[in-house]
Amino acid sequence: MNQVRHLIEPEDFTLEELMHLVDTGLTIFDNPAKYRKVCDGKIMASLFFEPSTRTKLSFDSAMMRLGGQVLGFSDANTSSTAKGESLADTIKVVNDYSDLIVMRHPKEGAPKLATHFATIPVINGGDGGHQHPTQTLTDLITIKRFKGRLDNMKIGFCGDLKFGRTVHSLIRTLARFGNKEFYLISPDELTLPVSLKRQLEKQGVKLIEVRYLEDVVEELDMLYMTRIQKERFFNEEDYVRLKNTYILNRDKIRTAKEDLIILHPLPRVNEIAIDVDTDPRAAYFEQSKMGVYVRMALICKLLEVGPYARG
Amino acid sequence: MNQVRHLIEPEDFTLEELMHLVDTGLTIFDNPAKYRKVCDGKIMASLFFEPSTRTKLSFDSAMMRLGGQVLGFSDANTSSTAKGESLADTIKVVNDYSDLIVMRHPKEGAPKLATHFATIPVINGGDGGHQHPTQTLTDLITIKRFKGRLDNMKIGFCGDLKFGRTVHSLIRTLARFGNKEFYLISPDELTLPVSLKRQLEKQGVKLIEVRYLEDVVEELDMLYMTRIQKERFFNEEDYVRLKNTYILNRDKIRTAKEDLIILHPLPRVNEIAIDVDTDPRAAYFEQSKMGVYVRMALICKLLEVGPYARG
Amino acid sequence: MNQVRHLIEPEDFTLEELMHLVDTGLTIFDNPAKYRKVCDGKIMASLFFEPSTRTKLSFDSAMMRLGGQVLGFSDANTSSTAKGESLADTIKVVNDYSDLIVMRHPKEGAPKLATHFATIPVINGGDGGHQHPTQTLTDLITIKRFKGRLDNMKIGFCGDLKFGRTVHSLIRTLARFGNKEFYLISPDELTLPVSLKRQLEKQGVKLIEVRYLEDVVEELDMLYMTRIQKERFFNEEDYVRLKNTYILNRDKIRTAKEDLIILHPLPRVNEIAIDVDTDPRAAYFEQSKMGVYVRMALICKLLEVGPYARG
Repeated sequence: MNQVRHLIEPEDFTLEELMHLVDTGLTIFDNPAKYRKVCDGKIMASLFFEPSTRTKLSFDSAMMRLGGQVLGFSDANTSSTAKGESLADTIKVVNDYSDLIVMRHPKEGAPKLATHFATIPVINGGDGGHQHPTQTLTDLITIKRFKGRLDNMKIGFCGDLKFGRTVHSLIRTLARFGNKEFYLISPDELTLPVSLKRQLEKQGVKLIEVRYLEDVVEELDMLYMTRIQKERFFNEEDYVRLKNTYILNRDKIRTAKEDLIILHPLPRVNEIAIDVDTDPRAAYFEQSKMGVYVRMALICKLLEVGPYARG
Repeated sequence: MNQVRHLIEPEDFTLEELMHLVDTGLTIFDNPAKYRKVCDGKIMASLFFEPSTRTKLSFDSAMMRLGGQVLGFSDANTSSTAKGESLADTIKVVNDYSDLIVMRHPKEGAPKLATHFATIPVINGGDGGHQHPTQTLTDLITIKRFKGRLDNMKIGFCGDLKFGRTVHSLIRTLARFGNKEFYLISPDELTLPVSLKRQLEKQGVKLIEVRYLEDVVEELDMLYMTRIQKERFFNEEDYVRLKNTYILNRDKIRTAKEDLIILHPLPRVNEIAIDVDTDPRAAYFEQSKMGVYVRMALICKLLEVGPYARG
Repeated sequence: MNQVRHLIEPEDFTLEELMHLVDTGLTIFDNPAKYRKVCDGKIMASLFFEPSTRTKLSFDSAMMRLGGQVLGFSDANTSSTAKGESLADTIKVVNDYSDLIVMRHPKEGAPKLATHFATIPVINGGDGGHQHPTQTLTDLITIKRFKGRLDNMKIGFCGDLKFGRTVHSLIRTLARFGNKEFYLISPDELTLPVSLKRQLEKQGVKLIEVRYLEDVVEELDMLYMTRIQKERFFNEEDYVRLKNTYILNRDKIRTAKEDLIILHPLPRVNEIAIDVDTDPRAAYFEQSKMGVYVRMALICKLLEVGPYARG
């Protein structure tokens, strides 16, 4: 056997590999019936050391739609961890119960650590505020499906750009794909971290920071919304004032392009008004759906089955 | 595709449809091996916003015996709801992860609401004190199996007739099937709600209300027992006194017909004495078993597979 | 149909049956692909009235690798038990949802009780401090794989020999296989219970009790480690002093045989130092892996499928 591959962060894959994954996901989306047995007899261990229904169900659905089975836990309280077992031991044991591990963990770096003890592929399903690479894949496949390309776009990120790991990961990845201009729309308290800005600017990326969506909305090909969490603010008044500024509604996209797409990693609380849902530019539920297909492609790649079967 | 069907309350189906479901369930019961692949490749999302092992496992078993797979959660604490997501959003997302949704929710009307956002079938697995239509289907298939018919019976309901949603739903449905006489056996505190009585009497149904089972037991073709819950009473003494009056034991069915059947939706606590279990008239465990088969029929109907496949 | 078999304690099977199970497990291990459909269409109910991820996942993996499906719960809080249902009723109901029950319960004797109400096979997945027969099977298959035999060995048990149910069960079973000499290495506070010692000595077994592993390590063919739990001690100082004495490390096995195997039921906390893991004599992760294969053999035996299919 060749060396086992893992997905801990998007940088683990080359641009070509990412592009191929996205295209494979779209191929599966076009004809899912063709792939419904490719994981027959395979087991995915789904280890959620912290709950995340959305991510868990998306992976479960992906594996089941490929004909595989799923075991695991959705909460560390019912796991051996509660008895004081080390992560290394848990991984070594589960490694022999399954063919692939998906792992979500509250601690940064835990999935990376897991790869040292696993002889089967490990997928990072989110590690604290650090990485969530399958969210990035989900974003990419949605963009590709609706825009037909991954580069040469005017892209706006709106809301909490300081703490949102999905934003950091997606900006970095879109920059790798050659996008040269990003609109960063956030309150002063929640701007993109300086270190990331430096890194992007070194790569020749132009960052346009603004406070209000209305100032730039008509420029955008894609708008990525995020949630502003109360606990990020020092005081209640700032939160209430800013929260409303960053709620997207029909009025705020009145002047936007017709082929704009609006993404959001979900779950949403109230950062996008319900009336936007029926706007043809709203793509966040389609985005969630596409997440299943790109995860199907990823599972196939790591298990080397179906479209990724070896000659 | 035709319009998607849901099951939120028994009235969603015509009498003919209910009868056909019951008969299909009996057909599957007679030859389950014939149906063990009809849901191959299908996924059921089992969304239990409040725990109910019995209902969940019955549905899981039904889907698995048809060759389908199951994903979901058994407790809202591990779901995105905990992050403040609306039910509408949860349903829209899960809609793309699965082919069929089974949903239990503490709030009345939640499954009905879900049908507004789903493009796949939704089954109400119980919504608060409101509806639990697959329990009614379970009751019907059991009656049909043991009595050979769904009409023309003398039927007694015993215990808490005020709060028991399974009782309300079953009485209404049996009245639709043309049953004209019901014996209502309960303490004064727990009689059938007046509005339901009015409704039934308008349909020409005769309701005979008594306090003691012994007064009518020899008349009955079927006896439906329910649990009397302590929290329904104002004071402990009333509860203790009445509880014992409404515990079914061998002595109380001494004079009953030989072909009486005794049903109970389960779980039971102590409202039926253990010594009744071995009486040939006790049908409540068979009832629980039949629940799997009628759910198999229901899943087939809503997914239009197997016996309900379209020409 | 013949009488249904259960596994509640190792004594439920004859020596020949145990040996055959172990050998069947090894056969499946050598060629798992051959068995990956033998439980197609079968359902295992996995009823964990107390959490135990390791045991649950091992059984789930075994059933899935045979092509079967799994339903159940991993925590009694989400079960009907929380509504006051008796174990008897739960078993009678689940009996109709599945083809095989695996059950873990905090109360001794609960799985035995379950066999009175089940018409399908019941496997004890651990009942309090009492029995855990599939751990014993796991130990046996590991010994057979690495030593090629189950008898005629010098075997040491180290750590908590007083409360460790896996130790009691394994010693009794290895004595049945004709092993005549055991080294018992423990602090005075945690020696093997007198009643078990008497029983073994009556069978002609020689027990050599020592306090320090170093005194006997070079004699051993197999060393079985267990965890020393803090709550077993009257005072903190005794615990701290003894804990360190019974931590296995590289230094303590310096003089041991080259073909010694070291077992541990896992999870481990710190009773085996990490540096032992890479020693070729450490077999505890292989042991955990072998547990899946012997459980596959057991499931096949109880369901009478695959290698145990009838005529």
